[in-house]
Amino acid sequence: MAAYLRAARRPAALPSSALALRLRGAARAAARAESTAAAPPPAAAPKKSGFKRASTLLWRLTYGSAFLSVGWLGYHIYDGRHPADQLPPDPTKKSLVVLGSGWGAVSLLKKLDTENYNVIVVSPRNFFLFTPLLPSCTTGTIEHRSIMEPLRHILRHKKASVTFYEAEATSIDPATRTLTLRDNSEVKADITETTLPFDYLVIGVGAQNTTFGIPGVQENACFLKEIADAQKIRTRIMDCIETATFKDQTPEERKRLLHMVVVGGGPTGVEFAGELQDFFEEDLRKWVPEIEPDFHVSLVEALPNVLPMFSKELINYTERTFKDEKIDIHTKTMVKKVTEKSIFAEVSRADGTKEMVEMPYGLLVWATGNAPRPVVRDFMSKVPEQAKARRGLEVNDYLVVNGVEGIWALGDCAATKYAPTAQVATQQGAYLARLFNTLAKTQALEEDIAHLEELGNASALPEDKKTIAAEIENKAKSLRRTKRLMPFQYTHQGSLAYIGSDKAIADLSFGDGNNLTSSGQMTYLFWRSAYVSMVFSTRNKLLVVMDWLKVKMFGRDVSRE
Amino acid sequence: MAAYLRAARRPAALPSSALALRLRGAARAAARAESTAAAPPPAAAPKKSGFKRASTLLWRLTYGSAFLSVGWLGYHIYDGRHPADQLPPDPTKKSLVVLGSGWGAVSLLKKLDTENYNVIVVSPRNFFLFTPLLPSCTTGTIEHRSIMEPLRHILRHKKASVTFYEAEATSIDPATRTLTLRDNSEVKADITETTLPFDYLVIGVGAQNTTFGIPGVQENACFLKEIADAQKIRTRIMDCIETATFKDQTPEERKRLLHMVVVGGGPTGVEFAGELQDFFEEDLRKWVPEIEPDFHVSLVEALPNVLPMFSKELINYTERTFKDEKIDIHTKTMVKKVTEKSIFAEVSRADGTKEMVEMPYGLLVWATGNAPRPVVRDFMSKVPEQAKARRGLEVNDYLVVNGVEGIWALGDCAATKYAPTAQVATQQGAYLARLFNTLAKTQALEEDIAHLEELGNASALPEDKKTIAAEIENKAKSLRRTKRLMPFQYTHQGSLAYIGSDKAIADLSFGDGNNLTSSGQMTYLFWRSAYVSMVFSTRNKLLVVMDWLKVKMFGRDVSRE
Repeated sequence: MAAYLRAARRPAALPSSALALRLRGAARAAARAESTAAAPPPAAAPKKSGFKRASTLLWRLTYGSAFLSVGWLGYHIYDGRHPADQLPPDPTKKSLVVLGSGWGAVSLLKKLDTENYNVIVVSPRNFFLFTPLLPSCTTGTIEHRSIMEPLRHILRHKKASVTFYEAEATSIDPATRTLTLRDNSEVKADITETTLPFDYLVIGVGAQNTTFGIPGVQENACFLKEIADAQKIRTRIMDCIETATFKDQTPEERKRLLHMVVVGGGPTGVEFAGELQDFFEEDLRKWVPEIEPDFHVSLVEALPNVLPMFSKELINYTERTFKDEKIDIHTKTMVKKVTEKSIFAEVSRADGTKEMVEMPYGLLVWATGNAPRPVVRDFMSKVPEQAKARRGLEVNDYLVVNGVEGIWALGDCAATKYAPTAQVATQQGAYLARLFNTLAKTQALEEDIAHLEELGNASALPEDKKTIAAEIENKAKSLRRTKRLMPFQYTHQGSLAYIGSDKAIADLSFGDGNNLTSSGQMTYLFWRSAYVSMVFSTRNKLLVVMDWLKVKMFGRDVSRE
Repeated sequence: MAAYLRAARRPAALPSSALALRLRGAARAAARAESTAAAPPPAAAPKKSGFKRASTLLWRLTYGSAFLSVGWLGYHIYDGRHPADQLPPDPTKKSLVVLGSGWGAVSLLKKLDTENYNVIVVSPRNFFLFTPLLPSCTTGTIEHRSIMEPLRHILRHKKASVTFYEAEATSIDPATRTLTLRDNSEVKADITETTLPFDYLVIGVGAQNTTFGIPGVQENACFLKEIADAQKIRTRIMDCIETATFKDQTPEERKRLLHMVVVGGGPTGVEFAGELQDFFEEDLRKWVPEIEPDFHVSLVEALPNVLPMFSKELINYTERTFKDEKIDIHTKTMVKKVTEKSIFAEVSRADGTKEMVEMPYGLLVWATGNAPRPVVRDFMSKVPEQAKARRGLEVNDYLVVNGVEGIWALGDCAATKYAPTAQVATQQGAYLARLFNTLAKTQALEEDIAHLEELGNASALPEDKKTIAAEIENKAKSLRRTKRLMPFQYTHQGSLAYIGSDKAIADLSFGDGNNLTSSGQMTYLFWRSAYVSMVFSTRNKLLVVMDWLKVKMFGRDVSRE
């Protein structure tokens, strides 16, 4: 059996050609716009001055491209709402079960030829969430519905039907090749638990937050992984402010309540701190002026600096910008304990000494740490080859889970040499889609060859035998070509982060170690356009752009809800 | 002391002239648009044909009015975001405390001259909610943030500062003239309870849902009064659908989960039923086709027909439309008991017999019944004159609470002869604003007169005495005029309701019992424009319009969140 079905370590083959990637979307859109702009034929108007001719041409181009853009947008909107009829599910085909609805799973589903399998998707969340914009949701810069894409929209646009169950997979049994599904949502019926058999399984359930066993974090901190987390933070910011301005509040309590602390200096923590300071500068200080002297954002990081995945230059730029924005960065500060009103952290001084400090806080956002989900831990315990796995499921170069057959893992629940980012999960999803599409083609060819061999054996005429043998040789060549699937190879496209006050940083890669770093307000525009191009659907793209316009026009909402 | 300060029953005076009212907004907007359109001067262009002149004029008018409209919108958006500096709060002035942030309280605050008092607003909700569009929020036709207006926006635009405390008033003590405030939100500080003294108090806390003591309603039903209620319903609709399509679900359970029951045939219940059926027809049946045979909306009403405030003709139209939309109306059906999965109701047959029926349900929305809030009940128990009050605080013709001095009540917490509607509360709020503005003027005049009398007594010259006497006479005349405040008189402007499939009904009043009834799709356009004109701020107006466009373009979101 091939290595992309069964895990058995082998040396990595040649690097694959760079995969089609998220950031390319922007380039494609630009190319599209160019071709659009060039579309209307320039009418040659005789007896006109050069200037007049040029200006006429310019007008026509403008009108033409505006017309085509609107048409293009209209087509996509129409297409989004009017999916074609689908092939019905075919239970005789091999069952391919996909667990999850995040970056990995959705990237796989988008590129998978669903007509080759009986595809079933299981996730406790019936939508895809565009996580990079989640920090913007905490302050209302983006409304949360704008970055949610219903899974049923995606599935309904596939050629063959896909079955979706909103449920949590609570256990994976590699021996019987079945899953246990549980309906954990509020509304329950007689059936809340059932089993689902699979032939092929892709695990893309992501990871969960971890508090590293630090006491008090789970009870007192807000996290930033799901929509509900962002909404909780949004409510809590306003709740802190309203409680701080309550009648007869003491000055110490007011100061505490208005101290907003973010733990974790990765992109999520940095972007959240920047968004929160923006919210204060642009909206809160105007509508609730009495909080002005006490409102304060702090960022706490255990490492010596924030944003370790960015270049030194960009880290320094971020630190300078935060200083200008009056966000305090506390690096080399390790949280040891959290109580209802205070954070206790150990600060490593330059002279090597360590000191315990207390930070009273109103809001604590915990933006660090990933741990395997219970279903993944349970599965690991059933597979001897996963005994040493810690961060997630260990997989081979084809993303097959070590120790089992026909089970793949991708994204944050797989332990690979790559960082647990959306970018990696997306590329892995696209890779697995190619793998499954290839597998289906391979199997079809193998069946054809077997059928031809039977025909050849049964045939009496030598001419027939010869034709059949040639045909078999042909198919076998195709089969060899198809089977030559390269192992997964990640191509880093770069990192982006928003750092507040309309500034962003970008660290872009162009193959072979060529890097481009950029920072400031133009980079923020690039950040915006890159994110909009990455958002999957036309609907979400438009909604995100509308949200940005809305905030520019009206500011953010200060209602506590 | 005047009757508008202290309650003492007296016969109602002449009816006041009709008050400026919400529905008029539409007419004003139209008049504004007309004057806008007429604004640019038509340029007389010689030597042009009549057609050409007319077309030129038309173009200019179009451009001109578009330009002016954008300018007008831009001005309002700019003005909304850039409030002028305010006079600081003046604690030497009389304290006017307003409880609540609903229709009554906000209408009062919008029209009140805040510089005359030390105004303090107390509400557990720091925003105003445009309740008529709440049924649209349950299905995502309108996003909830679009109908929320932060109270601080409204207060920040007043001439003199207004203090706001996000808190619940838990008790009103008429003897010591103090309130007890409690911070009931999640984030708490050292001070969670405090007292607030008042000189004048306006109670506009609204009412709470009541279940009429029917067992099981409180535990199993969703209500429809606040934003959180609408969000809960929205999540629950999708949860029912996802649970119904869970693997191996039984056909009975699937049928039950997809049965959506609304109890209460008033405008809220009818509009919710219509919105829900729209959601199914326009979105759900496309994205989740498997629910099609079982999805079903029922409306249950104890009275013989729905919408008792509308004319017979409109009631019949609504019943016919619901029949076409396949919404079942069960009139003369009184809910007796609710369990987790079933409603038990007593149906009165035409022959006078009664029968108990069981309705299995997935979602139950309880859209009927108002009861006084605990703070109001507690206050009633302290005032002997309120011993017989049941529905709410009994007030005199000037909205003064019977049995106390300097305490007014308006909206759903006051028991008047009018229905507990937004329209009544708004007019009461505007009335009280006039009352307080008048009171301030009266007091200023009285002080002036007292001062002049002193001057007159101290003066020796007969000329001075004469001038002063004339001045006093003048002021006294003003005072008499100002004091002649009419009792509150409600002017019914009409009733509107959306009934699904782009149809609405309207029952409009034009004074002296002249009525106009209208129904259908044109009425729906009127319903929309009336609601948009009623929404207070330019920001909310635009957001509501954008939401409608969004649903037209992309449909509603089927994510469960």
